[in-house]
Amino acid sequence: MTDVPAVQAPLVQDWIDRAKRADPRAVARLISWIEDSSPAVPEVMAQLAPTAGRARVIGLTGAPGVGKSTTTSALIAGYRKRDQRVGVIAVDPSSPFSGGALLGDRIRMQDHALDDGVFIRSMASRGHLGGLAATTPQAVRVFEAAGVDVVIIETVGVGQSEVEVAGTADTTVVLLAPGMGDGIQAAKAGILEVGDVFCVNKADRDGADSTAREVRHMISLADRDPHRWEPQVVKAVASRGEVDELLAVIDLHQEWLTEDDRLEQRRQRRATEEITALTLAHFRRRIGTDGHQQLLVLAQAVATGSLDPYSAADRLIATIGED
Amino acid sequence: MTDVPAVQAPLVQDWIDRAKRADPRAVARLISWIEDSSPAVPEVMAQLAPTAGRARVIGLTGAPGVGKSTTTSALIAGYRKRDQRVGVIAVDPSSPFSGGALLGDRIRMQDHALDDGVFIRSMASRGHLGGLAATTPQAVRVFEAAGVDVVIIETVGVGQSEVEVAGTADTTVVLLAPGMGDGIQAAKAGILEVGDVFCVNKADRDGADSTAREVRHMISLADRDPHRWEPQVVKAVASRGEVDELLAVIDLHQEWLTEDDRLEQRRQRRATEEITALTLAHFRRRIGTDGHQQLLVLAQAVATGSLDPYSAADRLIATIGED
Repeated sequence: MTDVPAVQAPLVQDWIDRAKRADPRAVARLISWIEDSSPAVPEVMAQLAPTAGRARVIGLTGAPGVGKSTTTSALIAGYRKRDQRVGVIAVDPSSPFSGGALLGDRIRMQDHALDDGVFIRSMASRGHLGGLAATTPQAVRVFEAAGVDVVIIETVGVGQSEVEVAGTADTTVVLLAPGMGDGIQAAKAGILEVGDVFCVNKADRDGADSTAREVRHMISLADRDPHRWEPQVVKAVASRGEVDELLAVIDLHQEWLTEDDRLEQRRQRRATEEITALTLAHFRRRIGTDGHQQLLVLAQAVATGSLDPYSAADRLIATIGED
Repeated sequence: MTDVPAVQAPLVQDWIDRAKRADPRAVARLISWIEDSSPAVPEVMAQLAPTAGRARVIGLTGAPGVGKSTTTSALIAGYRKRDQRVGVIAVDPSSPFSGGALLGDRIRMQDHALDDGVFIRSMASRGHLGGLAATTPQAVRVFEAAGVDVVIIETVGVGQSEVEVAGTADTTVVLLAPGMGDGIQAAKAGILEVGDVFCVNKADRDGADSTAREVRHMISLADRDPHRWEPQVVKAVASRGEVDELLAVIDLHQEWLTEDDRLEQRRQRRATEEITALTLAHFRRRIGTDGHQQLLVLAQAVATGSLDPYSAADRLIATIGED
């Protein structure tokens, strides 16, 4: 088990109150607690429940090098012009072992470092027991308590993380760049299935139109359900701040969401995933505590072939399940 | 819940016996059961326990486009020359929702389609409750029962999947290609921390030497623990079958593993992860069955802000934990 420092209750209350007043240090502190699985988190979440769900949540994902940070920065500028407060969660799926978050291209967001209507926060995607599915919505709640209107969750990567982002976000934007490889690669990354909006960034470069065309073509091949949102394809040059088309189509998607009870449905699904993640985290924790010694013995038996993994799991379940 | 067709017990025994005689259809069938979480799997695993651990397991990972399938094909040829039987698990991290496996570049492995000493199998990385951490080692056991000497687990992707592959493999090979982007991108992908061997493929292209140099440089910057294996960097032109250097350094790593009790330690750790994954899958299944109705009610309360997710998880845990 990680050694989690105890946080005194009055101090917890103080930090929560300060976060609600949009004190950036308190916002950062609360999110650090979430990252570190601090024992204070359940109390924090209980107090932040009333403001939950007030922000629009945008997921921004794409392969390395497509310009995610630059685009995030341009989107921030766009929302700030509309006088909206923006929170950014930059998820770093790397460093599964160190738990640290690289700040490399975060630097591009420094433009907004002195703007008190903007909160930017890196989060490691690993190390936390509940994973992204648990930590991201909690960080969103902290931003919401601080009065944030729009939350942008930026993830690097292909695979697990953008799927989890799609689970958390109201609108998922998949960023592409010209010449990113052929259709099979795009399909492989599974991005076609998670994106509400596809944005071809660096649209001033050669090949932007053909990349956009190709994505449109692939979308057109997918099964059409008239009740579902049809993914839109737009272009941007984020480095020059040219993201108007992207902003407009995000608005469009969010308007669509508010029709019928789509937004409520999405958020209920998100809550389902979050509760599931926290529940599984509980059992994982019990494996690490009450089940730890037994697991080591069982693993030795499985490794040497004297026991099969299912029988081993059955024995562990018996230990973990009882309270 | 997915609708799992019942498999009759005598039939199960028949398929297991045939798999042990290296019947390719039976091997494929058993792996399909694993993918589909068939109720027959625990019995299969119980019977395959004695042969568990006999094969060397090589993980091969890297970004899309570096030539993983071509390299796998060249490695197969290399091991076949040594008269070793080879099993390939090609993990497809895409299509989280469809569950299907794209066969696009699998076609390159057709060279070995008629060789009865080679088993090639695609597996979807999602859909299965235990995830890769549970399915991959089980598929390895099926190959081992069929007399396979070397298992190659090939994964596309950056993030979750290659970390799980590193957990399953004895030796993890990270494949790179010239001009794959700068050092920060490599570090982001987390690959530096999982690779035992780094192989710059397409080494006949410009930039191969500088890519190799850069990786060597980044390895040299990492903390040095004299008891740990120092990751090796080699070059290959897999499309021309030039993978001798790679084969040699994999051998070297596996010799190193057999010293002291390193291999046992790795395999025990792998068993630990596998048992943990199966145990968590059990609880996840219980959430989907006994906890399902309650979860929907709790999620609604969380989505509307009348309940916080931790309190919701506590209630669900009380339901799931009891038998």
